[in-house]
Amino acid sequence: MTRPTAPHILDVKLCMLGFGSVGRTFLAMLRDTEERLAREHGLRFLICGISTRHSGFLDATGMTAGDLLGIVHVGRDDLCGPAVPAEELIETCGADALIEATVLTPGGQPAAEHIEAAFRHGMDVVTVNKGPVAWHFDHLRRKAERNGRRWRFEGTVADGMPVFDLVENCLRSCRIHGFEGILNATTNFILEALGDGRSFDDAVAHAQREGFAEADPSHDIDGLDAACKVACLANVVLGAAITPDDVPRDSVRDVTPEQVTAARAAGRRLCVVAGGRLDDDGVHTGVRLTELPLDHPLTTIHGSALGLILHTDLMGDVFTAELHGEVQQTAYAVLADLLALYGRH
Amino acid sequence: MTRPTAPHILDVKLCMLGFGSVGRTFLAMLRDTEERLAREHGLRFLICGISTRHSGFLDATGMTAGDLLGIVHVGRDDLCGPAVPAEELIETCGADALIEATVLTPGGQPAAEHIEAAFRHGMDVVTVNKGPVAWHFDHLRRKAERNGRRWRFEGTVADGMPVFDLVENCLRSCRIHGFEGILNATTNFILEALGDGRSFDDAVAHAQREGFAEADPSHDIDGLDAACKVACLANVVLGAAITPDDVPRDSVRDVTPEQVTAARAAGRRLCVVAGGRLDDDGVHTGVRLTELPLDHPLTTIHGSALGLILHTDLMGDVFTAELHGEVQQTAYAVLADLLALYGRH
Repeated sequence: MTRPTAPHILDVKLCMLGFGSVGRTFLAMLRDTEERLAREHGLRFLICGISTRHSGFLDATGMTAGDLLGIVHVGRDDLCGPAVPAEELIETCGADALIEATVLTPGGQPAAEHIEAAFRHGMDVVTVNKGPVAWHFDHLRRKAERNGRRWRFEGTVADGMPVFDLVENCLRSCRIHGFEGILNATTNFILEALGDGRSFDDAVAHAQREGFAEADPSHDIDGLDAACKVACLANVVLGAAITPDDVPRDSVRDVTPEQVTAARAAGRRLCVVAGGRLDDDGVHTGVRLTELPLDHPLTTIHGSALGLILHTDLMGDVFTAELHGEVQQTAYAVLADLLALYGRH
Repeated sequence: MTRPTAPHILDVKLCMLGFGSVGRTFLAMLRDTEERLAREHGLRFLICGISTRHSGFLDATGMTAGDLLGIVHVGRDDLCGPAVPAEELIETCGADALIEATVLTPGGQPAAEHIEAAFRHGMDVVTVNKGPVAWHFDHLRRKAERNGRRWRFEGTVADGMPVFDLVENCLRSCRIHGFEGILNATTNFILEALGDGRSFDDAVAHAQREGFAEADPSHDIDGLDAACKVACLANVVLGAAITPDDVPRDSVRDVTPEQVTAARAAGRRLCVVAGGRLDDDGVHTGVRLTELPLDHPLTTIHGSALGLILHTDLMGDVFTAELHGEVQQTAYAVLADLLALYGRH
């Protein structure tokens, strides 16, 4: 944030850990909105470092997303150079903010250590990896505060669907005493496929062909992904201090097509509901197979959509949903966080 | 905003035009959250004037909501004194902000004139009356700017459901190119009652008994209320310059029970959809009877609930809903606007 390139334009230098589809889509979004970001938000983003497992990029002066994508596309490797260890990237690249977009690992490491290192080196952090928020929220929140840095994580729950931004900006005087959501599209898709008469294995294969499930979909199927999102929400909006290991969860592995069709016949829909509730005994959470009545708002969540109901004291129940939860929406979460950090207010 | 009563507590003086159920509920909310507002937001609100058609209240030093409600409850009139004309209140009370909560009148006057007068007298304005935003958005926006004042109106569309706050804070880098919503609970309720076999007159009477329809429900039934909300949305989020008179609208007056049941039999639901769309030809709007497929998110909007889908470029379609749209939610909108104006950021 040091070299104004034009009056009123703030240069913000970014570095990235992980450069999968979210990272690429995010850079394409930066490239495509460059003019809008400068004119309306007074910002220009420059990439000065990327670290992946197999390749890297380091350029302390920084490069626009458009320029960088040009090089990435013509380069013979994924990026321009050899792999740069994450620690080295954080120490040397001189970025204003780290975008942490590595894949989820149970325990949230080494992502949480990298975030802590970024705070120490004077960076703000945006993460789309749920692990650090799910397992280390309170620790990292304190580290950010102690270092005078800021930490945002809109992309950890339901891609770019406003959740934490909504709570922070639109429900700021409310107490939130619970939530329930459909926060994993893969299991939602599999349950619908079972209802269409497919076997479980066939439903999983179908979900994989349609891009809803990864090669190893066990994190989704067995509820770990949803439990991570529940832990993120419980820690951030209910003030809990839990990890995903504390969230009881149901797997869809043993659901039969008959269960889904029986629910349908009874005018209900079998869903995996990710919930949390704060009462006098503390915070109660779960990722639970639940039959919802058909007038329940969550029953309109289909395909790649995700939805969440927040139970509040002053504003009652507020429902929010993204109708398409693709990689574009996750990339948007990163941009939204960056604008919350550096945009004009 | 002049008399700090305690370290870090900002006193904000309010005056109110209109003191119906929203005004009373808002004061009760202020009273009940007084401690929270002081501790978490550093704010204390003092009421220094209220003007209704039949009675008034003026106290330039201001009174807390709790104290004022005590007097209002024991007083022999609605308020403590004789009616104070709106112009006089605005000129003399010395408030920091005007809360404009008078009832909707076609054309938006005299509410818009009062808002303009408030800007001239150095006040920010929060309105829950749709009229000024629906008929005079651009004019008042410029007046606010010219006077260095701020104007908020979250309560004009769907009570306290985050709409304008959502766009401003959570979708700030997006272009919004359209919206569709169920924004009038009365017609939604009447259509459901028709589907249950009631005649139109019976459905209206039922809606009145249940508190969904006013004594004269024609503004709802004939789509004016929804057209006002469409104009508000089109003006604010699509950059249109229209009034409700420009919004083509369907009345539910001529809908038969058979139409509703035929739609149901075809697996669809007949709804009044309030929509707007921005394309190369400009902004197109409407309040239209529409048969929605049952997997459409808006079909879960029942009873007092309201819902809105925003079509965006970067974030796809974002759906937001309030599951209960009572007077409490409208009062919350006023509080949300006040915190956006004066809360710590």
